[in-house]
Amino acid sequence: MSELTHFNAQGHAHMVDIGDKAHSKRVAIAEGRIHMQAATLQTILQGNAKKGDVLGIARIAAIQASKKTSDLIPLCHPLSLSRVDVSFVADEVNHRVVCRVQCETTGQTGVEMEALTAVQVGLLTIYDMCKAIDRGMTMDGIRLLEKHGGKSGDWVATEGSGS
Amino acid sequence: MSELTHFNAQGHAHMVDIGDKAHSKRVAIAEGRIHMQAATLQTILQGNAKKGDVLGIARIAAIQASKKTSDLIPLCHPLSLSRVDVSFVADEVNHRVVCRVQCETTGQTGVEMEALTAVQVGLLTIYDMCKAIDRGMTMDGIRLLEKHGGKSGDWVATEGSGS
Amino acid sequence: MSELTHFNAQGHAHMVDIGDKAHSKRVAIAEGRIHMQAATLQTILQGNAKKGDVLGIARIAAIQASKKTSDLIPLCHPLSLSRVDVSFVADEVNHRVVCRVQCETTGQTGVEMEALTAVQVGLLTIYDMCKAIDRGMTMDGIRLLEKHGGKSGDWVATEGSGS
Amino acid sequence: MSELTHFNAQGHAHMVDIGDKAHSKRVAIAEGRIHMQAATLQTILQGNAKKGDVLGIARIAAIQASKKTSDLIPLCHPLSLSRVDVSFVADEVNHRVVCRVQCETTGQTGVEMEALTAVQVGLLTIYDMCKAIDRGMTMDGIRLLEKHGGKSGDWVATEGSGS
Amino acid sequence: MSELTHFNAQGHAHMVDIGDKAHSKRVAIAEGRIHMQAATLQTILQGNAKKGDVLGIARIAAIQASKKTSDLIPLCHPLSLSRVDVSFVADEVNHRVVCRVQCETTGQTGVEMEALTAVQVGLLTIYDMCKAIDRGMTMDGIRLLEKHGGKSGDWVATEGSGS
Amino acid sequence: MSELTHFNAQGHAHMVDIGDKAHSKRVAIAEGRIHMQAATLQTILQGNAKKGDVLGIARIAAIQASKKTSDLIPLCHPLSLSRVDVSFVADEVNHRVVCRVQCETTGQTGVEMEALTAVQVGLLTIYDMCKAIDRGMTMDGIRLLEKHGGKSGDWVATEGSGS
Repeated sequence: MSELTHFNAQGHAHMVDIGDKAHSKRVAIAEGRIHMQAATLQTILQGNAKKGDVLGIARIAAIQASKKTSDLIPLCHPLSLSRVDVSFVADEVNHRVVCRVQCETTGQTGVEMEALTAVQVGLLTIYDMCKAIDRGMTMDGIRLLEKHGGKSGDWVATEGSGS
Repeated sequence: MSELTHFNAQGHAHMVDIGDKAHSKRVAIAEGRIHMQAATLQTILQGNAKKGDVLGIARIAAIQASKKTSDLIPLCHPLSLSRVDVSFVADEVNHRVVCRVQCETTGQTGVEMEALTAVQVGLLTIYDMCKAIDRGMTMDGIRLLEKHGGKSGDWVATEGSGS
Repeated sequence: MSELTHFNAQGHAHMVDIGDKAHSKRVAIAEGRIHMQAATLQTILQGNAKKGDVLGIARIAAIQASKKTSDLIPLCHPLSLSRVDVSFVADEVNHRVVCRVQCETTGQTGVEMEALTAVQVGLLTIYDMCKAIDRGMTMDGIRLLEKHGGKSGDWVATEGSGS
Repeated sequence: MSELTHFNAQGHAHMVDIGDKAHSKRVAIAEGRIHMQAATLQTILQGNAKKGDVLGIARIAAIQASKKTSDLIPLCHPLSLSRVDVSFVADEVNHRVVCRVQCETTGQTGVEMEALTAVQVGLLTIYDMCKAIDRGMTMDGIRLLEKHGGKSGDWVATEGSGS
Repeated sequence: MSELTHFNAQGHAHMVDIGDKAHSKRVAIAEGRIHMQAATLQTILQGNAKKGDVLGIARIAAIQASKKTSDLIPLCHPLSLSRVDVSFVADEVNHRVVCRVQCETTGQTGVEMEALTAVQVGLLTIYDMCKAIDRGMTMDGIRLLEKHGGKSGDWVATEGSGS
Repeated sequence: MSELTHFNAQGHAHMVDIGDKAHSKRVAIAEGRIHMQAATLQTILQGNAKKGDVLGIARIAAIQASKKTSDLIPLCHPLSLSRVDVSFVADEVNHRVVCRVQCETTGQTGVEMEALTAVQVGLLTIYDMCKAIDRGMTMDGIRLLEKHGGKSGDWVATEGSGS
């Protein structure tokens, strides 16, 4: 079990010591999508700032959630993000919306959890805003796409999804 | 767009008026799963309170997240949950962990978002604790399974997943 | 000093006992405005969901802030809002934006502070988003317009502003 | 719209990249005031630690609010303040209280929003504590007075108020 | 282990179901003390609203902490306090300060944790404010004194301290 | 009163200026204990990840609380912890559990309050989880054991407890 760094030698959870790690630029990109009925996607796409801007609100929720990551994930170190960018792309063929988030900081620990948390809350906010017309929406494919910086260096997800 | 209740007649986001809705018992059950490498699942399953209890920590994170839902999802009403139950089931054949959450309250609005938020954060915490050995873990099938109570009454997801 | 209810007989701050007050419907409406350069207002008004929706983001910030009131104001009771509505009106003659917020709940204490907090944070968010082009924006006239419900009943601000 | 830095090239809100900005000492001073009835101001001025210290409590609320700024303002970067100073001055001629806040940090982004947020919550807390005797209190003149540090350098408000 | 209600039949932590419990008036009184050097206590006692009001600030911190209890204690139900009263008594003979907190609500679960959390944070704030002159201060005797309401009815601590 | 650094020359609370202090490695170790009935301690000791892991949950609560310190203690500076380690030791002779927390960061201010806050919330969580069988549990001996780093350098508590 020693391989799971969030546990100490006794197997107890700890916030792992990063005090001796070098400061480096950290980047993480995460992604996820929400499937819905074709009509639900059309409703979202017809929205705009004057009339029901679902994606604009989900973007704000995602950005704010990235700042709450260390409050949500017990063993995450608090850190100060230097950049958060959230994009939504509609996939009309598969009637789903893809959310992609890039987070950055310069510091001693990575920002993968910040990017993943932002994706999750971005998708949840879409669910919340459309659930009155489509309770069956499903969130899928939430995963890390890339990370850069730190001792472990670059990592890019293989094609397909997941392990 | 009037069909999306989170927007008012002008198409502007609002926290919808629930003041005239009846108080009723509300139940929501949500589910999601995280796929991983077979070895990662074995590492999780060997953990226990003495030695690296990944699922115990993810359960606490999920419960705490359910209480933060209205802080994370912009248009959610604050509410006081009367029960939160989180279970994790290991699926060794497909090497994944399934998280299921049941939330309950008695009030004027449902607890679907609370259950979904708890699932998301439970899965994210598993990701966080195992990412040092498996960055490619993917979260899938996050969706509402059932809701009960309120004017719209009972709703149960159809088999398969989502829309 | 006994007239200030937030202090007890010894003059010490307390969260005043509302346990014996009747539950009633509570409504509060608050207002405030932010003055800016004429060009700044034009920039805001040209925004929309596709291109820089300042007011849409400020509206979300205002709604979320209303839910944080008891965390911000030390002696406020926590309560569950049943409705929050935020509107922005542009006043092109005086080049300012007026923010008006209506909050509602049914309970033992009023929602004036929730409405005022939402106005403040709505205006602050406009400031934040436009400060790169206009640091001299000023917020004014932040006040309660109306309250209804509770033992003290209805209250409506007199014309003009403030005391 | 490209002039509003909180939007990217597509016009979507983002937390702007500050990763390449130099670290420098940042100072911001903001101000605001709350108007009230003459008798209300006298009640406040008679208070002290033994008997109803309205301004002492408002000062604590202002300091704590400065630390919550990035949670309240959606696109603000989280940052660690190195100093917060809050002063209240009573203006008996105009029966109002003036709140002035100075915030400082060393970092890649300014602290104007922290200073303004502290002013707003300081004034709101005065309102909360005195509203039982004076609901018509009005908050005015909330604005940035000075900022120092960063690429844009020094900025000082012109006399009078606002734009 | 079934006797610990925070675990379900499988021994997993849950937020226990209180949905069927009757609503009743709940009261809890908790206490704790902080020991210090005689000179430290004199410094505290000389403070007042004009000049270093340690106890006034600790009182505000205690009240605010009571509202954060369900955020701090993982399996606590969120609830809305209807009253919080915090008192500090100086014991010059033993050079210590005693903090006593009374919390109240009407609902389905007790407020013991809210009262204890307020005591803890009240004492911690005294420590924080005086640590520059006395790092050896020690907090002791933090315990529940009384609780009333709910199915288990009245409970009063026996004299002496603790079990 | 000038000796209490949390007050300025006027005796008003402020978040003291640390902007000119050197960055150094900061370590703090704090401790506390909770007394209980002998049977309660046995119940805790029989727990494990499968069946009621009281200490595992208290450890997570303690770690999370350390990250909330500047939100709980009014004049604390926000800071980013680089390490948090929480241990619990059962003392069967005196039927009590001892909680010890070590916090670390590199920065301009110490982490004593973070370590003490974590101890308090760790003990409170044990209380919460066992209160159904032992309401008389008492928390004692909560104090700083050691601090290192910063201008004041090393400090180690003298034997015995407190001042």
